[in-house]
Amino acid sequence: MSEITLGRYLFERLHQLKCDTIFGVPGDFNLSLLDKIYETEGMRWAGNANELNAGYAADGYSRVKGISAVVTTFGVGELSLTNAIAGSFAEHCPVLNIVGLPSVSAQAKQLLLHHTLGNGDFTVFHRMFKNISQTSAFIADINSAPAEIDRCIRDAYIYQRPVYLGLPSNLVDLMVPASLLETPLNLSLKPNDPDAQEEVIQTVERFISEAKNPIILVDACASRHNCKEEVAKLVDLTQFPVFTTPMGKSGINESHPRFGGVYVGSLSQPAVKEAVESADLVLSIGALLSDFNTGSFSYGYKTKNVVEFHSDYTKIRQATFPGVQMKEALQKLLTTVQSSINPSYQPSPVPSVKLLASPAPANTPLTQEYLWTKVSSWFREGDIIITETGTSAFGIVQSRFPNNTIGISQVLWGSIGYTVGATCGAAMAAQEINPNKRVILFVGDGSLQLTVQEISTLCKWECNNTYLYVLNNDGYTIERLIHGEKATYNDIQPWNNLQLLPLFNAKDYETKRISTVGELNELFNSKKFATPDKIRMIEIMLARMDAPANLVAQAKLSEKTNAESN
Amino acid sequence: MSEITLGRYLFERLHQLKCDTIFGVPGDFNLSLLDKIYETEGMRWAGNANELNAGYAADGYSRVKGISAVVTTFGVGELSLTNAIAGSFAEHCPVLNIVGLPSVSAQAKQLLLHHTLGNGDFTVFHRMFKNISQTSAFIADINSAPAEIDRCIRDAYIYQRPVYLGLPSNLVDLMVPASLLETPLNLSLKPNDPDAQEEVIQTVERFISEAKNPIILVDACASRHNCKEEVAKLVDLTQFPVFTTPMGKSGINESHPRFGGVYVGSLSQPAVKEAVESADLVLSIGALLSDFNTGSFSYGYKTKNVVEFHSDYTKIRQATFPGVQMKEALQKLLTTVQSSINPSYQPSPVPSVKLLASPAPANTPLTQEYLWTKVSSWFREGDIIITETGTSAFGIVQSRFPNNTIGISQVLWGSIGYTVGATCGAAMAAQEINPNKRVILFVGDGSLQLTVQEISTLCKWECNNTYLYVLNNDGYTIERLIHGEKATYNDIQPWNNLQLLPLFNAKDYETKRISTVGELNELFNSKKFATPDKIRMIEIMLARMDAPANLVAQAKLSEKTNAESN
Repeated sequence: MSEITLGRYLFERLHQLKCDTIFGVPGDFNLSLLDKIYETEGMRWAGNANELNAGYAADGYSRVKGISAVVTTFGVGELSLTNAIAGSFAEHCPVLNIVGLPSVSAQAKQLLLHHTLGNGDFTVFHRMFKNISQTSAFIADINSAPAEIDRCIRDAYIYQRPVYLGLPSNLVDLMVPASLLETPLNLSLKPNDPDAQEEVIQTVERFISEAKNPIILVDACASRHNCKEEVAKLVDLTQFPVFTTPMGKSGINESHPRFGGVYVGSLSQPAVKEAVESADLVLSIGALLSDFNTGSFSYGYKTKNVVEFHSDYTKIRQATFPGVQMKEALQKLLTTVQSSINPSYQPSPVPSVKLLASPAPANTPLTQEYLWTKVSSWFREGDIIITETGTSAFGIVQSRFPNNTIGISQVLWGSIGYTVGATCGAAMAAQEINPNKRVILFVGDGSLQLTVQEISTLCKWECNNTYLYVLNNDGYTIERLIHGEKATYNDIQPWNNLQLLPLFNAKDYETKRISTVGELNELFNSKKFATPDKIRMIEIMLARMDAPANLVAQAKLSEKTNAESN
Repeated sequence: MSEITLGRYLFERLHQLKCDTIFGVPGDFNLSLLDKIYETEGMRWAGNANELNAGYAADGYSRVKGISAVVTTFGVGELSLTNAIAGSFAEHCPVLNIVGLPSVSAQAKQLLLHHTLGNGDFTVFHRMFKNISQTSAFIADINSAPAEIDRCIRDAYIYQRPVYLGLPSNLVDLMVPASLLETPLNLSLKPNDPDAQEEVIQTVERFISEAKNPIILVDACASRHNCKEEVAKLVDLTQFPVFTTPMGKSGINESHPRFGGVYVGSLSQPAVKEAVESADLVLSIGALLSDFNTGSFSYGYKTKNVVEFHSDYTKIRQATFPGVQMKEALQKLLTTVQSSINPSYQPSPVPSVKLLASPAPANTPLTQEYLWTKVSSWFREGDIIITETGTSAFGIVQSRFPNNTIGISQVLWGSIGYTVGATCGAAMAAQEINPNKRVILFVGDGSLQLTVQEISTLCKWECNNTYLYVLNNDGYTIERLIHGEKATYNDIQPWNNLQLLPLFNAKDYETKRISTVGELNELFNSKKFATPDKIRMIEIMLARMDAPANLVAQAKLSEKTNAESN
C-alpha cells in the first residue's frame, strides 16, 4: 500500500500514539472521514450522544492516555463542544478537535449551505476556536495536509492543549504517501537553554542547601505535563514532605510516608496549613493558582524562597526564566539534588490524615463528612476517580488515594456536567488498558442532569468497570451555599435516577439507593460489589445543605468576591 | 419606588415586551441577578436542564412571542450555548443572551478565577460571541447600564437576531432610577428613504401591471420580521397564487384558496414546480435561500422579473435598494396594489395538495409517506408544530397547516436536537397565551438523544399541552441517506423511550407506541387524545431507510456537494 487516504493518515497517526477511541457525533460533513476510523486497525468510534459530552469524553480520555481526539461536523457540531474545548484549554488537556468542513469548492463558491450562518463566511467558527486552541489548521491543500496534521498532533501533545483541525469533506478521500507514516512524530520538547537552566539549578541547589524545613507542593501540571515520575524521584531522593493542591491530587503516591496532605491555603486542615506555611523553601511543581485551588488565593507562605517549576518557564522568587521547562530542569536537578541537601536537614514528621470515619450506628443518616472519610478505604490501586464540581470535588480532598490512582476533577474550569462525559472517556480508556481498572464517578443530582445521556454510551460499550455514585441532595447545593439557599432557582426537577440504566438498555447493571451509614458500610465491605463486572449506579441520599466543610468556607469567600465593588 | 436595582430594571424591560419566561441555568456569577426575576411580577425562571437546551428553548419561545431571554454564567455557562445562539443568528431569532460576569473588581485585578481560561482574559468569550451576535454590551459602568440594556433589547427586537449582554455580578444590585421604565422602548424601524421606496413601489407596480401570471413566494423572514399580516393582505388584494418555501411554512394561511403549496426548486411537487417556475413575476418575501430551503439551489424561474423583499433591503431583478425594508415597503404597496393589477389578469387555479393518505388496511406498517399525508387532518387552528432536522423537517413539507399555525423548524442551521429544547420554549410560551394551545413535536430517535433532558423541564412546568412524537427509525436515517447506509456510526444505542416521562417524574402523562396505519388512525380519530390535558409521548416505529421522497432526493444532492472537488 503505497498510498492511503488523508483521512486514514490522520487516524494512523493517532493510533501510533495509542489514541484508539475517537469521540464525537456524525454529521454530513464528516461521514466520509468516519469511514476511515473503521479502516484503522484497533481503532473504534465511540459515537457519543451529543457533542458537548463527546468533548468532555475526549478530555477524560486524554487525562488517562495522554492525547485524545473528537470529531464533529461544521457549525452545529463544533459549536456544541466549545465549552468542552475551553475546559481542556484551561486545564491543559490535549484534545485534537477535528471538524468536518464543507468541501473546498463549496467554500470557494460561498454556497449558502445548511450549518452556516447564511452569510457565506466559512471561517467564522475557526476564528472563534482560535481563542481557545493552542494552534489550528484549516486544511485546503492536500499536499501540505499530512505535515499540517503532524503539526497539530505534535502541538497538542507537547503543549497539552486542544488543537483545532478543520478537514474539508472532499479532501479526506484524496491520497497521500503511506511512507510518511514511517517517520515517527517527533514529540520531544525543545531542549532548555543550557545557561538559563544551569542558573536555575544552581540557585535551587543553593536554596536546598540552606533549607532546614523545605517542602514540595505538587499541582495540576505535574500530572498533565508528564512529570509524575520526576516528582516521585525528587521526593524519594530528598525525603522532603510533599503536599498536593486539590488539582494536583493523584500527582504523587498518597501512601508515600512523606505525603502530608492537601494544601488549599486558609481552607487546609490546620496541620497541613502549618506545615506548608512554616516551610523555609517551597518547591512548587506545575502550579495552577486558581481560586478554588488555593482557597481563594489565601496562600500564606512565610518564606520568600519559592521556586515554581512550570511546563514552559521557571520562576525563582520574583525572577522568571522563560523557556526553562520543568521536565528537563527536574531531570537535571535529580542528578545532583541529594548532594546539595543541608547535612543538618532532619526529615520532620508529616501531618497525619484522618482516614477512617468515626464509628456511627448503622441507621445514622449518611453525611458528606462520613462519606468522604470512609471512601478512602474502598479505593484500590489503579482506580480512576472522577469528582464533579460541587460537593464531590471538595469532598474528595479529604480522601486519600491509593498508589497509581488517576484523579479527574475540573477544579479550574468547573463546568457542571463535565464528569459524566469525562467518565465515558475515562472508562473507554480504562477498557483499553485493563478491563479490571475501575472508573468511579461521584456526581451530584443537579450536575447529572446536564449530560445524563452519556451514560447511554457507557451502556453501548458495556463499560462494566464503572461505578456511578449519584449524590442526591435535591438540587444545586454548591450554589445554595454561595447564594440563594432558599431560592427555587437552585432546585431541580427530581428524577428517578435509578431508572436510567434500564432506560438506556444497560446489559449488565446494578442499582442501589442508600441513605445510612450502615448501608454504605455494607457496600464498601462487599467483595462482590468491589469487583468491576457490571455498570453500577448508587444513589446516595443526603441532606440538602450538607456539604464538606472546605466547600462551605469556599462558598462564603466566593459570594464575597462576586458582590464586592473593589 | 424611585430607584430599582439594575437587575430588576432589565427584567422589567423584558416584561414590558411580554417576555415573561426567562430561560437558563444558574451559576455563581448570575445568582444575584436571578433573584430579580422573582421580584418582577408575572415573570418566571424556567430553570433548564442544561445551557444548550436553554438556548434552544429561548429560540423556540422567541418564535412564538417575538423576543426571548436566556441567562447563563460566565465561561462554562455561556460557551455551552454557543451553538444555540449561532442558530438564532442564522435563523433570525431575537434572543437576549444575558451572561453573569465576575465582578468588575475581580476582572480589573485579573484574578485567576474558576470558569476562566486561567490567563486573566475576561473578554475572550465576549469576543467569540461577537461573531454570532447582532450587537453586544459588556457592562462595566452603572450610569450607562440602563441605556445599554435598552439598546440591546431594541436591537434584538428590531433586527431579530441574538444580542450579547454581559452583566458583572456586583452591578446587578446597584440602583438606577425607576422612572426610566416610564419611557417605553422605541421599537420602531427606521423609516425607509422615501425616494428609494418610491422607486421600488413604482417598479413593482409596473411589473404587476404587466404580469399575466404573477405569484407570491413567502419565506422565513416574512414570519420572523413580523410581516405575516402584510403578506396575507397582499394575497387577499391581488388574489395572486401564493407559495411558501420549507422555511416559510406557516407564513401564510394554508387553507387560503390561493395557497398553492411548498416550493423547493427541483424537489417540489411537479404541479408546484410548474406553477412557480412558469410565473412571469415572482414577489419573493423574506427569502433565505439556503440549500435545504431551495432543493440545493435548484430554483428554475423562467422570468427575470423577480422582486425580493428583505428585512433590510429590496432587490428588483439585479438592482439592490439598500435600506428599503420590507415591512414599510409592503405596507406602502398595499395602499395602491389593487389599482395596478393588469385588468386582463385572471386568477388561475392553484395546484391542489393531496391531503389524505391513500386508504390502507389497519395492519399495514406505518410509513413516512402515510404519516405526513395523514397528519394534516389531525392538526387544528392555533397549533405550534415543531419538526426536527431529519425525516420530520422534510416530511412536514407534505402536510398542510391550519390557519394560525406556527411552524418551527431549523431548516438553515439544522442542529440536531434543537427541537426538544425549542419545544420546551414554545410550550412555556403557549402556556402564557392559552393553555389549550397545542405544541406538537416530531423528533427522530437519534436527535432526541442529544437534548432529551429538556423533557424534564416540560414535566416540571406541567406543560400538558405537549405532544412528543418520537419517530423511531433506529438511528440517524438522514445521514444514512447521505452517506454510510450500513455504517455503524449512523447507529445509536436503542433506548426505552417510553420510560422517559416516568423517569422525569411527569405528573399527568400518557405514552403509546404505534407501528401500524390502524393505530395511527385510531389515535387521530380520538377526541380524548386530541385534547391537550397531559404530556403525551407517542413512539412511532418506522423502517430504518423509510424517508420522505424529498429527503431522499436532497440527500443525494448533498452527498454530491460534499464529495465534489470543483
